[in-house]
Amino acid sequence: MFSRLSKRVKNVQDQQKVFFTTNRTTPWINPKVKKAVLLSTGVVCTGTGAYYLLTDRERRIPLGVREKVPSLAIYPDRGGVKELPITTHYLEDSIDKENTKPRLVIIGSGWGAVSVLKNLDKDKYNVTIVSENNYFLFTPLLPSATVGTLELRSLIESVRKIAHRIGGHFLEGKALDIDLDNKLLEVEGCHSGEKHFYVPYDKLIVAVGATSMTHGVQGIENTMRLKTIRDAMDIRRKVTENVEKACLPTTSPEERKQLLSFVVCGGGPTGVEFAAEMSDWINEDLVEWFPKVLREEISIHIIQSRDHILNTFDSKISDYAEKKFDRERVNVITNARVDHIEKDNVVYKLKSVNGSEPVTKSLPYGLCLWSTGIAMTSFAKNLTDKIPIQAHKRVLTTDGYLQLHGLDDVYALGDCATIENPKLIEHITEFIQNADTDGDGKIKYKEFLAICETMRSRFPLTEQHLTNLKTMFNKYDTDHDGFLDVQEMSLMLKDIDKNMTNLPATAQVASQQGQYLAKYLNTLSSTENDACTQKMVGPFRYSHLGTLAYLGNTAVGDFKWGYQMVGGLWALYLWRSVYWSEQVSMRTRLNLSIDWTKCAIWGRDIATV
Amino acid sequence: MFSRLSKRVKNVQDQQKVFFTTNRTTPWINPKVKKAVLLSTGVVCTGTGAYYLLTDRERRIPLGVREKVPSLAIYPDRGGVKELPITTHYLEDSIDKENTKPRLVIIGSGWGAVSVLKNLDKDKYNVTIVSENNYFLFTPLLPSATVGTLELRSLIESVRKIAHRIGGHFLEGKALDIDLDNKLLEVEGCHSGEKHFYVPYDKLIVAVGATSMTHGVQGIENTMRLKTIRDAMDIRRKVTENVEKACLPTTSPEERKQLLSFVVCGGGPTGVEFAAEMSDWINEDLVEWFPKVLREEISIHIIQSRDHILNTFDSKISDYAEKKFDRERVNVITNARVDHIEKDNVVYKLKSVNGSEPVTKSLPYGLCLWSTGIAMTSFAKNLTDKIPIQAHKRVLTTDGYLQLHGLDDVYALGDCATIENPKLIEHITEFIQNADTDGDGKIKYKEFLAICETMRSRFPLTEQHLTNLKTMFNKYDTDHDGFLDVQEMSLMLKDIDKNMTNLPATAQVASQQGQYLAKYLNTLSSTENDACTQKMVGPFRYSHLGTLAYLGNTAVGDFKWGYQMVGGLWALYLWRSVYWSEQVSMRTRLNLSIDWTKCAIWGRDIATV
Repeated sequence: MFSRLSKRVKNVQDQQKVFFTTNRTTPWINPKVKKAVLLSTGVVCTGTGAYYLLTDRERRIPLGVREKVPSLAIYPDRGGVKELPITTHYLEDSIDKENTKPRLVIIGSGWGAVSVLKNLDKDKYNVTIVSENNYFLFTPLLPSATVGTLELRSLIESVRKIAHRIGGHFLEGKALDIDLDNKLLEVEGCHSGEKHFYVPYDKLIVAVGATSMTHGVQGIENTMRLKTIRDAMDIRRKVTENVEKACLPTTSPEERKQLLSFVVCGGGPTGVEFAAEMSDWINEDLVEWFPKVLREEISIHIIQSRDHILNTFDSKISDYAEKKFDRERVNVITNARVDHIEKDNVVYKLKSVNGSEPVTKSLPYGLCLWSTGIAMTSFAKNLTDKIPIQAHKRVLTTDGYLQLHGLDDVYALGDCATIENPKLIEHITEFIQNADTDGDGKIKYKEFLAICETMRSRFPLTEQHLTNLKTMFNKYDTDHDGFLDVQEMSLMLKDIDKNMTNLPATAQVASQQGQYLAKYLNTLSSTENDACTQKMVGPFRYSHLGTLAYLGNTAVGDFKWGYQMVGGLWALYLWRSVYWSEQVSMRTRLNLSIDWTKCAIWGRDIATV
Repeated sequence: MFSRLSKRVKNVQDQQKVFFTTNRTTPWINPKVKKAVLLSTGVVCTGTGAYYLLTDRERRIPLGVREKVPSLAIYPDRGGVKELPITTHYLEDSIDKENTKPRLVIIGSGWGAVSVLKNLDKDKYNVTIVSENNYFLFTPLLPSATVGTLELRSLIESVRKIAHRIGGHFLEGKALDIDLDNKLLEVEGCHSGEKHFYVPYDKLIVAVGATSMTHGVQGIENTMRLKTIRDAMDIRRKVTENVEKACLPTTSPEERKQLLSFVVCGGGPTGVEFAAEMSDWINEDLVEWFPKVLREEISIHIIQSRDHILNTFDSKISDYAEKKFDRERVNVITNARVDHIEKDNVVYKLKSVNGSEPVTKSLPYGLCLWSTGIAMTSFAKNLTDKIPIQAHKRVLTTDGYLQLHGLDDVYALGDCATIENPKLIEHITEFIQNADTDGDGKIKYKEFLAICETMRSRFPLTEQHLTNLKTMFNKYDTDHDGFLDVQEMSLMLKDIDKNMTNLPATAQVASQQGQYLAKYLNTLSSTENDACTQKMVGPFRYSHLGTLAYLGNTAVGDFKWGYQMVGGLWALYLWRSVYWSEQVSMRTRLNLSIDWTKCAIWGRDIATV
């Protein structure tokens, strides 16, 4: 069955300089199963790799590598629908110990992905992270990096370092597609041009985040975004470039005004924080090092479609922010919708008042930041098209355990996914029929309790809304007859439906979801049973700790205890402490402290790099 | 002579919203000299700016600006050969106080320029810096930034901040040409497209540095340089990109070897230090966070045309460096000249031995660094073409006082210039004729002293070579007849010529020249007489303190006291201390300390940004 092939080996060696000694080599080869055994000086090489080594000129392995790494890591087998190379083994693997743990593949390296990595138990999964960025970015502080309050490198941590604890593998690539039948993720190397390959998974976590929403606005390519570290670099460069340009004698007053006009489209936290950082920079650094006259020419504008900026916060906070911006000469334009963006002008329409025609206005800009909400990445879009139940949705939907609807063993979290709330009202007939044992169409308190029990077990997310049942019963029993009729019952279900709103697309949610999913997967690894794990871990529950926003040497916040933080220097320090404590490593924590200190002593670095 | 033009003013105001009150305005205008006087509510505006304000629709000035800034800073007059706007006033200037100090314009923001800025007395000149970069870069540490031992921002300091002490103006632009007749420097804004303008000067310092020499090698565009901060950024990105790419399963062993092959063309300090930093990074960080097997595939090569690397250092140091690199598996290829550079291969020729054909070899690379000496910038080239005496030279030449040959009030220093040594031998007949009073063709000791005096006063640079004259006389009087004949005299002059070598193109030389020039200009400002200043300050004298090179956790150095530092951990710290103390600001000093500490504790940041 095995045939001796020493001549061939000699041939390979002569031509390709494979560094082993021929005279001590005794190779055996089995062409049927594509396996071979190769004995060399102190080296044993077996399996498919050895087969290719002996039969295929293109697939030779130098000795040093062969000693340590499974040959399949170097010459992966092909397979799947597209017959692409399959990454079954990694360069980090050892040939001494086959890795038999279940393969967990995580797409993305943002809040959700990193939170899973940090909370996953060691040795339970063979983890692979696929992402276009080999770093985690601390997004909430990104606006600070646009003017140099913080340095860019202080906000990032290498994913390789984060994944090191659990022995995770990292592949820098862009997830494109899933071969559902074979459980293979198709990946394209970020820089390697056309080469695609498959990463096999047993469990897959989709944490691809989101891109900016364009709202179909024309000329969006003239604007800048603030989602990645490169975006922050580009903005910082553009800001200082514009200011330097404004100092040249050939720049006319009109051009100067335009160059120094910074327009933010979108009054959410990112836009507001960028405006605040710009304002700080102007008042603290620009006036010191650049001609003072520029201060009069600089303008910052926020165009917001709603009544107020920071509209997800408490109105007290929005008011405070608007007043502060007013004092600092940041121009807040509310009730305005961007119509299109020209090369040098943002054209927007003010909402019509009393049915009159909306007024169209134009605002020249030197830099326009677009930050008006999020949209699906191409991978997520691709996925929704593949799964019938997800088709034509605007976001991936999961159940309460973060499992993707319509696809086994796939989880989704963070900005790319939303937990689908049950529509309780759709089940009203069913609930009443099952519970109404006497068939009189009226729900007694005892029957009401049974309905609640059913709801809880079938839709775990309703649990937090089914407390104080006696009070609830009395509240909805509007005619006080001791029963809930169909109208009263439907009112209650509608109210519960309304209260179960979608979670916001924030770092906080993604981070908690990651923590939850890690716990889920840790448990699953012991129970090996989804139903059992779901019972043990329960569905995901979001605990809103609060929302923070930086407002230029102060901060505002909405906290879980119903308390609002509005302004003051201590708010700045609280804001800093919260983010400081949330850092993923001591290195980034130290970096933040150093950067804040440096900024306080020497001001920001105004060089254009 | 003056005609009242209130109607016209009203017209301007209506159309252009100039914010002054017409009914209190009494403008007077003189079209012949293009001057006008304009009185408004509490505002007096006079001169050419006011003239344009009243006559030219395009040149209107809003009130807020006009109150503070001379109108000529906003609407510069045109002039010079090309009729371009002339920057006679700056946005920083005040209309209350005309700046009458002599205009000193410095082109460049490197070692030479910054050294002038730091040593120039306050209030003696109206200084303007014209440079493409608004920062000073601490070039000797640039190799450390390519792998993240130091962060890029730690090596730079804003020129605006450096120039602040002496109230200097900064213009971000590229110097193109000089209008010699009108003493105007033509500048193009870096980012403003096509707009050119003139900067007038009384004194001009050319400190434009140098670019890389290409030696006419084909395919040079495939290589990377290491001269600017952007270069270091690009290299750092390329290194981590290549390593990430090497980790992908679709990368074949050949591609992997190629990706991880780092080739340095040139064995000078920059090339050697980059190789040492790469080697450090591989041994300290790469092996920890990336698959260990990559270590075996990585290779670093230095291609050097001479016998040894670091050939400007003592041979003991070159030997040490070569041995250290040999231990650390850095491949040093000496006596090799790069022939051409292909997309993936460097092709080089080994020097022929014993008259045989030179052997041509090829080396695959993933990154190729080109650092083989310097060449003139386009501005310097332009300048040599304009000045007959400088034509066709490979570098700008100056006299011993750093004044550019053939151009008054222009100084040049640093890498772009060289101090031209007198060729004493060319003057031998003249010396002898003048001194040989008795016409016997033999130089007596007394006549020899007269010749030395002549040389000293005509060529100040010879001074340091004309000491111990009695010993010198006896040394060259080889036939001991008590006279120097023409042969003996010419031997002496040739020896002196030989000893007066050109200064190396280093930061140290530029820095000392800057210091000297600042002192010269400070003195000149009091004496207002070049001859007198030259006598007071004397010609520039270079004091060589030593040369240092980093070699991977150790360093080597040649010091002025004839002492050599070869290896050892203390050498690393000495190397660091020297550069630390040479920093331009406490901010960059602190940054260096922090970076070195962070690198020691957490290693380098391996994220690709």
